[in-house]
Amino acid sequence: MRALICHAAQDLRLETTEVPELGEDQLLVRVAFGGICGSDLHYFQHGGFGTVRIKHPMALGHEVSGVVEAAGVQVRGIKPGQRIAISPSRPCGNCRFCQSGMQNQCLGMRFYGSAMPFPHIQGAFSEKLVIDASQAYPLADHLSLSEAALAEPLSVGLHAIQRAGGVLGKQVLVTGCGPIGSLLIGGLRRAGAARIVAADIADLPLTCARQMGADETINLRTQSEAMDKYKADKGQFDAVFEASGSEPALRVALDVIAPRGTLITVGLGGEIALPMNQIVAKEVDLRGTFRFHAEFATAVQFLNEGLVDGKPVITAVVPFERAVEAFTLAADKSQSLKVQIAFADASA
Amino acid sequence: MRALICHAAQDLRLETTEVPELGEDQLLVRVAFGGICGSDLHYFQHGGFGTVRIKHPMALGHEVSGVVEAAGVQVRGIKPGQRIAISPSRPCGNCRFCQSGMQNQCLGMRFYGSAMPFPHIQGAFSEKLVIDASQAYPLADHLSLSEAALAEPLSVGLHAIQRAGGVLGKQVLVTGCGPIGSLLIGGLRRAGAARIVAADIADLPLTCARQMGADETINLRTQSEAMDKYKADKGQFDAVFEASGSEPALRVALDVIAPRGTLITVGLGGEIALPMNQIVAKEVDLRGTFRFHAEFATAVQFLNEGLVDGKPVITAVVPFERAVEAFTLAADKSQSLKVQIAFADASA
Amino acid sequence: MRALICHAAQDLRLETTEVPELGEDQLLVRVAFGGICGSDLHYFQHGGFGTVRIKHPMALGHEVSGVVEAAGVQVRGIKPGQRIAISPSRPCGNCRFCQSGMQNQCLGMRFYGSAMPFPHIQGAFSEKLVIDASQAYPLADHLSLSEAALAEPLSVGLHAIQRAGGVLGKQVLVTGCGPIGSLLIGGLRRAGAARIVAADIADLPLTCARQMGADETINLRTQSEAMDKYKADKGQFDAVFEASGSEPALRVALDVIAPRGTLITVGLGGEIALPMNQIVAKEVDLRGTFRFHAEFATAVQFLNEGLVDGKPVITAVVPFERAVEAFTLAADKSQSLKVQIAFADASA
Amino acid sequence: MRALICHAAQDLRLETTEVPELGEDQLLVRVAFGGICGSDLHYFQHGGFGTVRIKHPMALGHEVSGVVEAAGVQVRGIKPGQRIAISPSRPCGNCRFCQSGMQNQCLGMRFYGSAMPFPHIQGAFSEKLVIDASQAYPLADHLSLSEAALAEPLSVGLHAIQRAGGVLGKQVLVTGCGPIGSLLIGGLRRAGAARIVAADIADLPLTCARQMGADETINLRTQSEAMDKYKADKGQFDAVFEASGSEPALRVALDVIAPRGTLITVGLGGEIALPMNQIVAKEVDLRGTFRFHAEFATAVQFLNEGLVDGKPVITAVVPFERAVEAFTLAADKSQSLKVQIAFADASA
Repeated sequence: MRALICHAAQDLRLETTEVPELGEDQLLVRVAFGGICGSDLHYFQHGGFGTVRIKHPMALGHEVSGVVEAAGVQVRGIKPGQRIAISPSRPCGNCRFCQSGMQNQCLGMRFYGSAMPFPHIQGAFSEKLVIDASQAYPLADHLSLSEAALAEPLSVGLHAIQRAGGVLGKQVLVTGCGPIGSLLIGGLRRAGAARIVAADIADLPLTCARQMGADETINLRTQSEAMDKYKADKGQFDAVFEASGSEPALRVALDVIAPRGTLITVGLGGEIALPMNQIVAKEVDLRGTFRFHAEFATAVQFLNEGLVDGKPVITAVVPFERAVEAFTLAADKSQSLKVQIAFADASA
Repeated sequence: MRALICHAAQDLRLETTEVPELGEDQLLVRVAFGGICGSDLHYFQHGGFGTVRIKHPMALGHEVSGVVEAAGVQVRGIKPGQRIAISPSRPCGNCRFCQSGMQNQCLGMRFYGSAMPFPHIQGAFSEKLVIDASQAYPLADHLSLSEAALAEPLSVGLHAIQRAGGVLGKQVLVTGCGPIGSLLIGGLRRAGAARIVAADIADLPLTCARQMGADETINLRTQSEAMDKYKADKGQFDAVFEASGSEPALRVALDVIAPRGTLITVGLGGEIALPMNQIVAKEVDLRGTFRFHAEFATAVQFLNEGLVDGKPVITAVVPFERAVEAFTLAADKSQSLKVQIAFADASA
Repeated sequence: MRALICHAAQDLRLETTEVPELGEDQLLVRVAFGGICGSDLHYFQHGGFGTVRIKHPMALGHEVSGVVEAAGVQVRGIKPGQRIAISPSRPCGNCRFCQSGMQNQCLGMRFYGSAMPFPHIQGAFSEKLVIDASQAYPLADHLSLSEAALAEPLSVGLHAIQRAGGVLGKQVLVTGCGPIGSLLIGGLRRAGAARIVAADIADLPLTCARQMGADETINLRTQSEAMDKYKADKGQFDAVFEASGSEPALRVALDVIAPRGTLITVGLGGEIALPMNQIVAKEVDLRGTFRFHAEFATAVQFLNEGLVDGKPVITAVVPFERAVEAFTLAADKSQSLKVQIAFADASA
Repeated sequence: MRALICHAAQDLRLETTEVPELGEDQLLVRVAFGGICGSDLHYFQHGGFGTVRIKHPMALGHEVSGVVEAAGVQVRGIKPGQRIAISPSRPCGNCRFCQSGMQNQCLGMRFYGSAMPFPHIQGAFSEKLVIDASQAYPLADHLSLSEAALAEPLSVGLHAIQRAGGVLGKQVLVTGCGPIGSLLIGGLRRAGAARIVAADIADLPLTCARQMGADETINLRTQSEAMDKYKADKGQFDAVFEASGSEPALRVALDVIAPRGTLITVGLGGEIALPMNQIVAKEVDLRGTFRFHAEFATAVQFLNEGLVDGKPVITAVVPFERAVEAFTLAADKSQSLKVQIAFADASA
C-alpha cells in the first residue's frame, strides 16, 4: 500500500509501505478521506513548529474515515463493510492523567502523525490502516465518509467548549474562522450559545462562519470599529475562543471579554506579549485547550444525527495521487478552508 | 378591563378590574396570549398545593406575551406597537440572594400569580398589564405571539439545564414529558445533549417529546422493560431530569443514572420516599430547580432565532371568553399539553 | 498467623490462616492497629446491611496501619521497617470509572472487608497482610501507628468535602458526630470552613466534635430549639454534612440549609421519606458520597504534618486477643467513638 | 482631623481635613492601624501605575482597623466602643456585576484610596472615618487592632484561593512572598492545601512564608535548581499563585504547573510575554484575581478565631506623625514586609 510520508520541510512523498499485521483486538481499515490539518501543513511547510521537528520520515495525517476490511478475532460489534470515523487518539490508559480522565494529556500518548515524541508516531494518510477497535466509531447511513473525516477537528472544537465550562445562554466571540474556528462555531450553536460573533481578517472564513451558525461576522481588517460596542462596561462576551493564534486577536479578545469571562486559546501560538493588568483587573480566565478525548464520540454522534453540519467547511477534495498538490492548495488561505484527500477507492 | 380571578378551588371568574397607573419606568401592555401552567391548574382545581393556598381573590397566569400600548417617560428603546414576551419574575434586587445572582430565590420576589406570599401576587391573565420595562423582551418579526408565550416554561427548562451544569455531550433521560418536560427536551437538544431518552406513562406527551428532539421514547406503562438496558454497569445516564413529580419515576431515575450523575427534580412533588443507599453508593447529585431568572432572555433569544421550536407543545388556543373551559381542557391530560388563552384583541 | 473472621451475625472468630505469597510489586506488612468501622459492626451485629449479606466467612476490617516486613523485588522507595498507613482501596484501573478519575466507583473494586461482591473481599484484621506497594503511605516519625489507622475514616470525610465542592469560607453544619462525623469536622476546619456547627443526639460525640474544631454544638434531643435561628430567611448553612443516616436529621438539615446549599449524605441510610418540595423550592443539592480514593494520600499528609489531629476520636484500644470484646465495646455508643484493635506485636 | 494626602509622586502630606457628617446608616470611627499596600507605595513613588495616575490630591490607604465613636440612628448591632476591621469595598449594588455576586467588578465601585475612577476615591489614612455600617466587622477580644488591619490583604489572598476553585488536598506553589503572598500562604494552609512550596528572590519573605505555613521555601536566585524536580512529567503543581508580578516567575510557574493546573496571577504586572504553546499544550488555566468582596468576612472570622495568624507579616509599626517615613521604610524590601501606621490615639 501507499502512504504519504514527510521527510523534511517541503519534502512530502507518496511511498509504498507494508500493511501492519492485524491484532486480535484490531481492525484493518481501507482509508476513505483524510483532512489536512494545520499541524500537517506545518510539517510540510516548515518541518515542524516550535521545538517539535521531524527527525525521521513520518506519515502525516490524523483526520480520517474509512471502511472496515477485516476484524481481529476478539473484536465484537464491528464487521467488515462498516463505515467508520477513526479517532487518532491512543492514550496509554495507565499514567496519572489517564487515571484522572485527562487522556489527552497522557504521558505515553500515541497520536497519529505527531513528531512530539521520538520516535515519532506515524500518521494515518495511507491506503490501509490497522487500528484498535476502540478507535472505530460507526457512521449513520446518511453521513458521507467525507463529512465523517470532520469528526476529528469538530472534536477539537467540542473539547474547547468543554474547557470553557459550557456556553449555554452565553454571548460568545470566536476569533479566527478557519476549519477549526468554523467547526467550533457549529459546535457552539449546538451547545446552546445564545449569540455568536465571528471575527477574522479574511472574508472566506467569515462566510463559512456564518453558514456554520454565527449571528454576526466582523472582518477585523476592514470593520474593526464594529468591535467597539463590545468594549462597553468592561466588555460584553462571556466567552471568547481564540483560534487564530495571533497576538492582535488576543488583544481584541481581552478588550471585549467580560469580567470573569473565559478566553479559550485554541491555536498553538508561540511567544505572545499580553497585558497582564487586564487579565488581573478583569479576572479573565485564559485557558489553553489541547486536542480532545471523550469528545470524539460526541462529534460522531452530532454528525450522525445531523446536529452539526460540517459541509460548509470542506472547500476541496483532492485524489490521493495529487496529495502534494492538496497540501499546496490547503496552504492557500485565500481559497481554502478544509482540504481533504480522497484515498484510492474511497468511492465505495 | 377584564381579568381571570381565582376565588377558591373550582371558582374561577372573568371579572372587571382597573388598569393600574403607568409608572415612568413602566409599560402598558395589551396581553396577547397566556399559557395555562400546572400551578394555575392547581389553584383552579384544589385552591393551591401543599401549604400554599389561595386566601383572597387572585388573578392567575404568568406565561404571557403582548403588545406595548404606551411607555413611561423614562423608558428607552421600547415603543408602542412593540411585540414582547413578558417575564413574570420581579425580584427585589437587594436581598442576599439577589446580590449573589440567585434572583429566583429572592426573599421579596413578586412572581405573577403566586399565593406563596401574603398578600398574594396578582397574575397576568388580564386584558391589560402594566409591567416594568425590564420585564419586556422584544420579539423577532417571524415569531408569533402565541409561541412567545412559551418563553416562560422554556426558561424553566433552561434553568434546569443550568442547574445540571450543562449537558454538552451527555446521555440524558427526561421523565415526564408534559409541556415543561417537552420544552426541556427542546432546550436539551439545543444545549448539546448527545442522546435524549424521553419517558412518560402516556403516548401524547411522548409524541410531543419526539417532535421536540428526543432520540428514543419509552412508555413506562407499556414498555418499562425498555429501561433495563440503561441499568447496566451501575447506570448509563449522565443526567436525568425528573419532570413528573412521581415517586415511581424518581425510582426509575435512580436505577438508570450513572454514578456521580445529576438528577434534576423539576416537578414540585410532596413527600417522596427515596432509597438513600442508592444515592450514597452511586454518589448521585439530586438537585432541585425552581423557576429561572437570566434564562428568560436566553429563552426569548432561542425562540427569536428559531433555535428551539416550541409549537409542538401547544395543543389548543381558547378565546379569553371561554377561559374557564380552557382550564378544564388543560386538566385533561389525555388530549392536552399546553393550552393557551387568546386574549380579546390578540389577533393584532 | 491469625485473622478475625466473621462467619455470620454474632459469629466472629479469631482463626489461623495462611500468609499469602509476596508478589514482586507487593509488601509483606505486620499489621499494627485497626479501627472498627460502622460497616464492620453491621457485619458483626446483623450479618450485613440492606441487600449486602455475608455469604461465606470473611475477615473484617479496612482501617489499618502497620510496619513493612519485606518488599517484593520490583518495589522501589519502601524498605522493611517502614511504618505505613494502608489504603484499603484497590480499584481495577481499567473500567470506565477508573479511566475517569472516579476510582471509588470502580466496577471491579476490591475494597477490604466488603461483602458487596461475591466472592467477598477479605478484610485486613489479621496479623500479617500482603499489600500492593501502591497501598502503602509512609508515616512521619512523630505520628503514632494508632493515629495512622485514622487515615481511612479521615479520607471518607475529605472525600465528602470534595463532593461538596469545598467549604472555604462557608457556614457548615454536621449532623451525626460519631467517628466519621468528628473526623469530618477536623477536615472541615482544615479545609477552611468559616463556622462549623455540630449536631447529635448524644453528648459524647458532641464533646469530641468540639475538640475536633466545631464552633458550636447542639444536642438535638435537649436543645433542638437552638436550631431555630438557622431557619431564618430560607436557611443559613451553605453546606450540611449528614453523617447520622437518620430521617429526622435529614429533615432538620433541609430546614436550615440555605437555597442552593449542598447537603452531603455520608451515612448509608435505607429508605427515607423526604419533603421534595423543599428540595425543589430551595434548589438544594443533595449529594451522596461514598468512600474515597485520592483523598487517602491527603489524609496521611494531614496527619503526618499535624494539620488534623484525630486523637480525640479514639476512645479505646483493645488487644487483638480480645477483638470480639472490642466489637461489643464499639457497639456501645454511650461510651465509644472509635475503638481500635492493637495487633499482637504492635508495640514495635 | 488629619489625613495623609498624596498630591503627586514623592509628595505625601499630613493635612488637616474635615470629618464628614454622620449618616443614619453610618458609623464614625477612630482609625487605629493602617497597613501600607503596594498600590499605596506606587502612588507615593510613581504617582500611580500603568494608566492609573493621581490627578488631584487623594488620601491613601485601604487596610484599616478602628474603634467606633458614634453610630447613626438606623444602625443596629454596633455600638460606640466596638473594635472593628473596616472593609474598603463599597460596591454600588445595582450594576450587572453586583447583581451577579461579582461585587469586586462593580461598575460604580468606590474602593478606598483608588485613582482608577475620576474624581478619585479618597482613602482611609486619616484619624477619623465615617463608614457605612455594612463596612464594619467586629473583632474578637483577643485580636489586636494591628492584626485586624491585616483583614484586607488576607481577603485578597482568600479571594485568590476562591478564584482557584479551592485547594483542598492540592500541591501548591506561591511565587512572591511579600505581605500578600505570605498571607496567602496562611490562607492556603487553612484552606487545606496538602503541600505548599514558597518561592522568592530574597530571604526575608521566605522566612515569613515558612512562618505562615510553607512546607518548603526556594530562593529562585540562589537555589533555582531546587525547582527542577517539579518539572517532571509535564509539571507537578496543581495550583500556582503568582504574587510577584514578574515575568521570570511566571515562566517558572508555567514549567512546573501540572496539565490543567490553575495559575492565579495576583500581582498586577504590565505587559508580559508568555509562551502560549505551553499554556495551550498543558491546558493551563491562567486566571486573574482582583481584590475581594465576601472574603472580607471570612478573613475577619479566620483572624478572630485564630485560624490564620498574620503577625509574622508585620515588620514595623510607625506612628502617624512619621507616616512619610513609614512609606520609605515600606519601600525597602530588604527589611520590610507589611509596615503599618499607628494613628494618634490607637493605644485605646
